[in-house]
Amino acid sequence: MADRRAQTKRKPAAPRKAPGGRRAPAAQRATAAGRTRSTAADLAKQQRDISVSEFFAKNRHLLGFDNPSKALLTTVKEGVDNSLDACEEAGILPTVRVEIHQVSETRFRVAIEDNGPGIVRKQVPKIFGSLLYGSKFHRLRQSRGQQGIGISAAGMYGLLTTGRPVLITTRTGRTSEAHQLELVIDTRKNEPKVKRDEVVPWDREHGTRVEIELEGAYRGGQHSVDAYIRQISLANPHAEITYVPPRAEEHGASHVFPRVTDAIPPETAEIKPHPYGVELGVLMQMFRDTRARNLKSCLSGDFSRISPRTAGAICGAARVAPTRRPSEISREEAEQIHQAIRKAKIMAPPTDCIAPIGEALIEAALRAEVKADFYAAVTRRATVYRGNPFLVEAGLAYGGDLPGEEPITVYRYANRVPLQYQQGGCAITRAVTGTDWKSYQLQQPRGALPIGPALLMVHIASVWVPFTSESKEAIAHYPEIIKEIRLGLQECGRRVATHIRRRRRDADEAKKRAYIERYIPQVAIGLQKILELSDGERDQVVANLADVLARSRKM
Amino acid sequence: MADRRAQTKRKPAAPRKAPGGRRAPAAQRATAAGRTRSTAADLAKQQRDISVSEFFAKNRHLLGFDNPSKALLTTVKEGVDNSLDACEEAGILPTVRVEIHQVSETRFRVAIEDNGPGIVRKQVPKIFGSLLYGSKFHRLRQSRGQQGIGISAAGMYGLLTTGRPVLITTRTGRTSEAHQLELVIDTRKNEPKVKRDEVVPWDREHGTRVEIELEGAYRGGQHSVDAYIRQISLANPHAEITYVPPRAEEHGASHVFPRVTDAIPPETAEIKPHPYGVELGVLMQMFRDTRARNLKSCLSGDFSRISPRTAGAICGAARVAPTRRPSEISREEAEQIHQAIRKAKIMAPPTDCIAPIGEALIEAALRAEVKADFYAAVTRRATVYRGNPFLVEAGLAYGGDLPGEEPITVYRYANRVPLQYQQGGCAITRAVTGTDWKSYQLQQPRGALPIGPALLMVHIASVWVPFTSESKEAIAHYPEIIKEIRLGLQECGRRVATHIRRRRRDADEAKKRAYIERYIPQVAIGLQKILELSDGERDQVVANLADVLARSRKM
Repeated sequence: MADRRAQTKRKPAAPRKAPGGRRAPAAQRATAAGRTRSTAADLAKQQRDISVSEFFAKNRHLLGFDNPSKALLTTVKEGVDNSLDACEEAGILPTVRVEIHQVSETRFRVAIEDNGPGIVRKQVPKIFGSLLYGSKFHRLRQSRGQQGIGISAAGMYGLLTTGRPVLITTRTGRTSEAHQLELVIDTRKNEPKVKRDEVVPWDREHGTRVEIELEGAYRGGQHSVDAYIRQISLANPHAEITYVPPRAEEHGASHVFPRVTDAIPPETAEIKPHPYGVELGVLMQMFRDTRARNLKSCLSGDFSRISPRTAGAICGAARVAPTRRPSEISREEAEQIHQAIRKAKIMAPPTDCIAPIGEALIEAALRAEVKADFYAAVTRRATVYRGNPFLVEAGLAYGGDLPGEEPITVYRYANRVPLQYQQGGCAITRAVTGTDWKSYQLQQPRGALPIGPALLMVHIASVWVPFTSESKEAIAHYPEIIKEIRLGLQECGRRVATHIRRRRRDADEAKKRAYIERYIPQVAIGLQKILELSDGERDQVVANLADVLARSRKM
Repeated sequence: MADRRAQTKRKPAAPRKAPGGRRAPAAQRATAAGRTRSTAADLAKQQRDISVSEFFAKNRHLLGFDNPSKALLTTVKEGVDNSLDACEEAGILPTVRVEIHQVSETRFRVAIEDNGPGIVRKQVPKIFGSLLYGSKFHRLRQSRGQQGIGISAAGMYGLLTTGRPVLITTRTGRTSEAHQLELVIDTRKNEPKVKRDEVVPWDREHGTRVEIELEGAYRGGQHSVDAYIRQISLANPHAEITYVPPRAEEHGASHVFPRVTDAIPPETAEIKPHPYGVELGVLMQMFRDTRARNLKSCLSGDFSRISPRTAGAICGAARVAPTRRPSEISREEAEQIHQAIRKAKIMAPPTDCIAPIGEALIEAALRAEVKADFYAAVTRRATVYRGNPFLVEAGLAYGGDLPGEEPITVYRYANRVPLQYQQGGCAITRAVTGTDWKSYQLQQPRGALPIGPALLMVHIASVWVPFTSESKEAIAHYPEIIKEIRLGLQECGRRVATHIRRRRRDADEAKKRAYIERYIPQVAIGLQKILELSDGERDQVVANLADVLARSRKM
């Protein structure tokens, strides 16, 4: 990614001497005739630190701001993610309002308002005005945001493209005042600058409203804000979301996506790192930082699922005294302990740190989304990748209004957030295309999505979702994750296959039956002629035969 | 990406009071029965800064360290990129040595050594022991590295997985001593820690050797280190690269890829930002930072391609006095100036900041790489995306030893660095599949790579390559870039099409000819019978007819 040695340098008029008038060093004399280029001394001159905001301002595509329409979507996403997270952590049923006002042809003002717990005044500047600041990064717990970048990156993009500051209004409760701040991020220092700061009247008892003005574009289609809002409400049935699109007169006034349930997702616990996922370097770091007085209590105290007994066993296997002071453990000893941990039998991490949507709610959400003949939902048991607990859910709607002759639609979710870009690069897509749908009665071109009237919804919940990029568009191809998804899909597949087969059998049956029915009268007439039956007897025969046919079908 | 408000908190035994014994704020009372969750006050407690190295240590997949084999490749790449950049900037013909020693089943020690200008002692720690430190980020100039992350990230990965420090040996010239340092990165602070620092004897007059030990895996195939070394030498014909693979006895001792040319790529100039690419926010920043005393001189001095006359015109159109002190320009004025710039006629940026490989060398490199019937190479004129000059080159080898019935092989390069991953997500692939190869006599399944005996090489050179991820695997889909690539491909396509057509015509011709030839004797015998010719005359006729056929063919 970077060469830190190379340096720029204006070509001097005449070949220059090395500093201090000493003979120019070999590097320089070695240059091709007529050219004088940089020496190590020159190279040393212009080195400097790069602030993380300068970095992301230049590499905005890493954060999902590669083009105007995506920038608008990303801004909305970041705001809504924050609102939902904040509400849930405070145990509040989320009521979120998303407004998009079109200021000019290419300029929009996005406002996201929630009924969350609000933000303490002194935290506001850093939260919205500096990158890599937050609380979720240093813990293992399921949440939508994980990095401490999102909303301030959106604010930075707004500032870059429109020069406008971010406007925040927040209040933490009836007993406290509502604060309103205007602030910008100083990209050189990655620090906030407060432009305006005042107490304002606000009818909300508690909550936060963020307004960002940015260069953007409002589009339809699978990547649109509208699609996002629909998908996020699908995966968050406990949230009420009001959406005011731009040019309301054109796109219709505000849409309200009501709550499907009043149950807040169960509170997820924070967990300690699981020993299997810890790398040697990290382990050494933990030994340096731990508060534990000896190795044994460090192992049993700082990790999940290590009992004092297991800790003792590990020390034994590693041939390091349980009483050793962690900070004094050498690299070699740490390596022995690391290997002993790998060999030790340790329970999988606790999974109460993960909150699935649940089969019932997924099915309900799907029913609300599309009219289909058949619905299936599966919530798998939680398992582990690289020491991180995760869980897969899959929902499938089949038939009904769904278009039959196209590849199925796939909605991808991570921690209840829809993933709208990079479908091709996502572990979920890999698992879907890698599943043999033919055996589940769906057509499937080799290595592609199955064809048929189906909508598939896949959700991954984890304390740490391994996204392939900072813009959170696709999930990295961890084999453990792909396997779990596939198992979930196969379960859905088996169920829909049974449904499809039954439907086909019924159809065939019906056809046969109609066929036979057509001939019953002829048969009866034949019998009448041969046996000289009366019309009554003939009709009786028809009735009997029809009856037999009906009974044969019941069997 | 992140919610900065949400906070973790142990569940207290009994419902707790808000700080200061005041009534719990509304947020808290609103929680579902029996649950006590975080209030704004709780939320404020655990906020903290995240260091950029903590961030990338956790998100290592963003830097190309997602799995052991990729980690090994990335480490080699970063080292070689740095070496080549350093040599070129110092005007030295690069001689680079890459060694991979297998320490254990899963552990490798990578060493990259160059004859570059070396590194001044006091710069070594920051260069190898902190992320986002370098010289290339803040300039517009073509180079392999651009971010200031690469090599120190590799060192960090090594530390995380093996606990081993990075070992650097460097010397800046005959007159100075060689320094050897062992250092690690303190991820908490993103700062280097020097473990060992001494002067050592080194037979090299100037250069740098870096050694990193890491958990890795050595694989073959298109993603292998071997493939990378071959491709990098293909795009850097001026470099001599020696490669020592692990387990030399198995994989053969060291391979040497010799220089194809002694010409160092022309020194590329650093350029100022082009006005068309500058966003409003950036413009405002420049006004704040400029050393220029008034607006006019700022415009003409700090941008490329703005003459004093144009600057005056822009001020006029923006209705802002040319004499205004830049630091005092308001947001509104800046916006007027920004619009005036967009409307003004301004030359495309200078392109001497880009060094193409060149058609001759591309063709030579291709000839060295594969035995084919036909070679074509195209270097396009430089052009601009988002204000950044860039240039596209394409090379095509056809027929010969190349396999005929498979999709063609595509080598992708950015600033002479091969891109081995994410082929699907790359603008180059998009351009290749988006080109209509059927019209160039190649089969092509819809929307896929063409089928045929061809090797395609595409190179993008730019002062700023827009990679889709920090791991530099694919180029973002900028329309301007895709268009340029396509034009380059079409040029190659036209040439190969001519070649293929001629070859077919010749083949048909030869078939006809053989056919006619077969009958000439019969014709002659016929004539002999009719005209009672002597055997001599008959043979004469045969000769004449053959002659006619030959001449007809020449026409």
